[in-house]
Amino acid sequence: MSTAAPADIQLDASGRLRHFLTVEGLNRELLVRIMDTAESFASVTAQNVKKVPLLRGKTVVNLFFENSTRTRTTFELAAKRLSADVLNINIATSATSKGESLLDTIRNLEAMHVDMFVVRHAQSGAAHFIARHVAPHISVLNAGDGRHAHPTQAMLDVFTIRRCKGGFAGLKVAIVGDILHSRVARSEIWALNALGVDEVRVVAPKTLLPAHVESLGVVPYHDLSEGLRDVDVVIMLRLQLERMGSAFIPSEHEYFQRFGLTGRRLEKAKSDVIVMHPGPINRGIEIDSAIADGPRSVILQQVTHGIAVRMAVMSMTMRAGSDMEAAA
Amino acid sequence: MSTAAPADIQLDASGRLRHFLTVEGLNRELLVRIMDTAESFASVTAQNVKKVPLLRGKTVVNLFFENSTRTRTTFELAAKRLSADVLNINIATSATSKGESLLDTIRNLEAMHVDMFVVRHAQSGAAHFIARHVAPHISVLNAGDGRHAHPTQAMLDVFTIRRCKGGFAGLKVAIVGDILHSRVARSEIWALNALGVDEVRVVAPKTLLPAHVESLGVVPYHDLSEGLRDVDVVIMLRLQLERMGSAFIPSEHEYFQRFGLTGRRLEKAKSDVIVMHPGPINRGIEIDSAIADGPRSVILQQVTHGIAVRMAVMSMTMRAGSDMEAAA
Amino acid sequence: MSTAAPADIQLDASGRLRHFLTVEGLNRELLVRIMDTAESFASVTAQNVKKVPLLRGKTVVNLFFENSTRTRTTFELAAKRLSADVLNINIATSATSKGESLLDTIRNLEAMHVDMFVVRHAQSGAAHFIARHVAPHISVLNAGDGRHAHPTQAMLDVFTIRRCKGGFAGLKVAIVGDILHSRVARSEIWALNALGVDEVRVVAPKTLLPAHVESLGVVPYHDLSEGLRDVDVVIMLRLQLERMGSAFIPSEHEYFQRFGLTGRRLEKAKSDVIVMHPGPINRGIEIDSAIADGPRSVILQQVTHGIAVRMAVMSMTMRAGSDMEAAA
Repeated sequence: MSTAAPADIQLDASGRLRHFLTVEGLNRELLVRIMDTAESFASVTAQNVKKVPLLRGKTVVNLFFENSTRTRTTFELAAKRLSADVLNINIATSATSKGESLLDTIRNLEAMHVDMFVVRHAQSGAAHFIARHVAPHISVLNAGDGRHAHPTQAMLDVFTIRRCKGGFAGLKVAIVGDILHSRVARSEIWALNALGVDEVRVVAPKTLLPAHVESLGVVPYHDLSEGLRDVDVVIMLRLQLERMGSAFIPSEHEYFQRFGLTGRRLEKAKSDVIVMHPGPINRGIEIDSAIADGPRSVILQQVTHGIAVRMAVMSMTMRAGSDMEAAA
Repeated sequence: MSTAAPADIQLDASGRLRHFLTVEGLNRELLVRIMDTAESFASVTAQNVKKVPLLRGKTVVNLFFENSTRTRTTFELAAKRLSADVLNINIATSATSKGESLLDTIRNLEAMHVDMFVVRHAQSGAAHFIARHVAPHISVLNAGDGRHAHPTQAMLDVFTIRRCKGGFAGLKVAIVGDILHSRVARSEIWALNALGVDEVRVVAPKTLLPAHVESLGVVPYHDLSEGLRDVDVVIMLRLQLERMGSAFIPSEHEYFQRFGLTGRRLEKAKSDVIVMHPGPINRGIEIDSAIADGPRSVILQQVTHGIAVRMAVMSMTMRAGSDMEAAA
Repeated sequence: MSTAAPADIQLDASGRLRHFLTVEGLNRELLVRIMDTAESFASVTAQNVKKVPLLRGKTVVNLFFENSTRTRTTFELAAKRLSADVLNINIATSATSKGESLLDTIRNLEAMHVDMFVVRHAQSGAAHFIARHVAPHISVLNAGDGRHAHPTQAMLDVFTIRRCKGGFAGLKVAIVGDILHSRVARSEIWALNALGVDEVRVVAPKTLLPAHVESLGVVPYHDLSEGLRDVDVVIMLRLQLERMGSAFIPSEHEYFQRFGLTGRRLEKAKSDVIVMHPGPINRGIEIDSAIADGPRSVILQQVTHGIAVRMAVMSMTMRAGSDMEAAA
């Protein structure tokens, strides 16, 4: 369950990104470099011919042990816009995987001279495990494990904040929702603190907050209106309704009554507050449609930035991998 | 159930094709322009290197809300031969779509800067709905809704007639089969009349003809031999056996007895008659194998022309979209 | 059940490879030419940009009538590295195939101007059947029929032997396991004899050997230690546990006791013996993990060579097809 990855697994000897497994442990400089690289790709995706040849001739394998069309799509698009060849392997539905161990699957794909694994797995730590075992030239990207967390999500969130707010100094950010089950929340807390925001708040019922949450460097709130007061950024988390038992929230209706983001509550925040959500939205449960579709929402910009951020980590890790291969 | 699309949705201010949702309402000039463009691609698909760079760097999304390998394949091939990147999204089998509205799905893909949606949906009007809501630079192609109808099918049929017969003037065309449930029949009737054929006949049992069918500009027949007399073109429709209750036809055997296309019946037609069918064929139900595979059949040419026609509407709509984007 | 394909189906008038359906019947010269071509691609897959433009603009259809992610992946990679467009059609899961005959499916894809079919089918002879019916410019590759056999597997095995041993003269090769149900074994026996090895042994319990196996040009052994004595190469076959009834082997445990490859047994072989296995491995059933992952194992090199061999037969058959098309 531990999310702390030793920094050395994802960094090469020169401190460059070799895998992208978690943002926890990454320093400010590297986070900024990822955002700067994403910035250079943000213009690519908007232009008429959206391809750059950085990964031409490289093979990116989307290795999905659980089905996620949405996430797979963003990585596939990012890889194709870098001119890579993309191989989608859905192990969840693949009969061949039967009786073959994860490591045998990896070794076989490796032997086919693929260059990158984008890994989605129901178990926390799967991407780390693969990263520890791949050949030196291969990069591993974590596309989400266990509790629907992925570091590219955290990075696209901070990238969106930087684009909207110009920077991080002096910002108050509220993360609202199921902090307990969200690895993305922990990643965001790390990244926001590393990037020097003024204050990170977590807003949730007590049942959805980890014990000793203050030790992560946040201020906890149990009342949404209080938590939103004077914030610059609201990050709504998705209620993983399909993953949580009835023990955690009394009912969807009551949850919305207490923690749903409405126009009235948002008035407590700064007038230029931005509202974020990783999608897909549970309309009327975490967030009112009027807010989700309103002028303060940057939810669709997050999606756009998601492609740029994924292109960034793909190109950065591949460069580090290529150099290691050349040196070998 | 209405198939009449306001012309303005699929045309831009200059009258050019921006979406391709239906042939109904399109004028002769535009239909001819589509066929002329398809003609230029017909040679591309036959040559050794089948790619043209017209859509390089563009992303085409095959957004299939119902499974159809056959149709998806033709659009995927057309897009790839135009050098586009293709993303296949099968919403029917995608768990992520759960709880997300159609519009949220569209908005998210839009935010990823895709350029075209090829839409297949069980509900009539789905492609129109999407076209009304997409960003200005995105084109929508209808790959079939409700009753297995799609305008590219109607266009490849008239394109095939033009290629085989040189033109439309003076032609007698018989459309045979389930006119009632076929949107492609209505589209073909529109297109054939707009292109100036001499006569369009519909041949079907009364239970499979719409009321007041004459108002569409056709002559109805209930006897196949009568309906085929002196025709230049026979368009067989596919019996959607999986979609029709037993109320409409007494039995497959009896249907073939009365409306199946046989060599003897085809003798009533002109000696250079061509026989068309959208596929897949129900051999021995709508059509005798000897006819389907015989010298008068152009069924496989229709398949070939289907690629050229889809390349044509893809390139035409994309061009209109690009200009709108540039102007924006 | 017959595996003997008339040579003329897969060769063109000049004796060049037009389809690749089986290695049986192919002469030494052609087998060597395939390996030489694979050699030229082996370096391509290792280099930084892994693409060559030999099949640019060509369309390769992976036509899989039974699901096999592993095999599909290797052909897809090979095709993409030759710059072909790849279309994956999984007939097993495709609803459209219902009611349409195999030949109608082939004719339709042909009409879309595809250039190559890679066929996987549960029935022996499916690829041959398709090859007998396709248009002159189309090549057919057998990616396995009935009993999980495919000629590219046999070729990558001999290619691996040549790379490791420098040639075939004087070699003793033992093929161990279920010879009876393995078409790849028969293909390998043919290829090894055609390439001039000194001796081919088959090692298996009597229940897993065909009658009159000596007539294939092999020496049968029923004792593994005996069969391994002084061999240069061990080819382990995969126990198709899912395909065999309990009649053939007493139990997995007993099978391993008698025919599992262990370090102790391998000591009987030459000190520079190489160990091969087509994968996926049943660890602890046919082979001990220490051997599979040990220094004598070339199992992962086989996977690497599989890409090169598939690129070789794709480029060779396509060239023959293109010339036939040009001549037509």
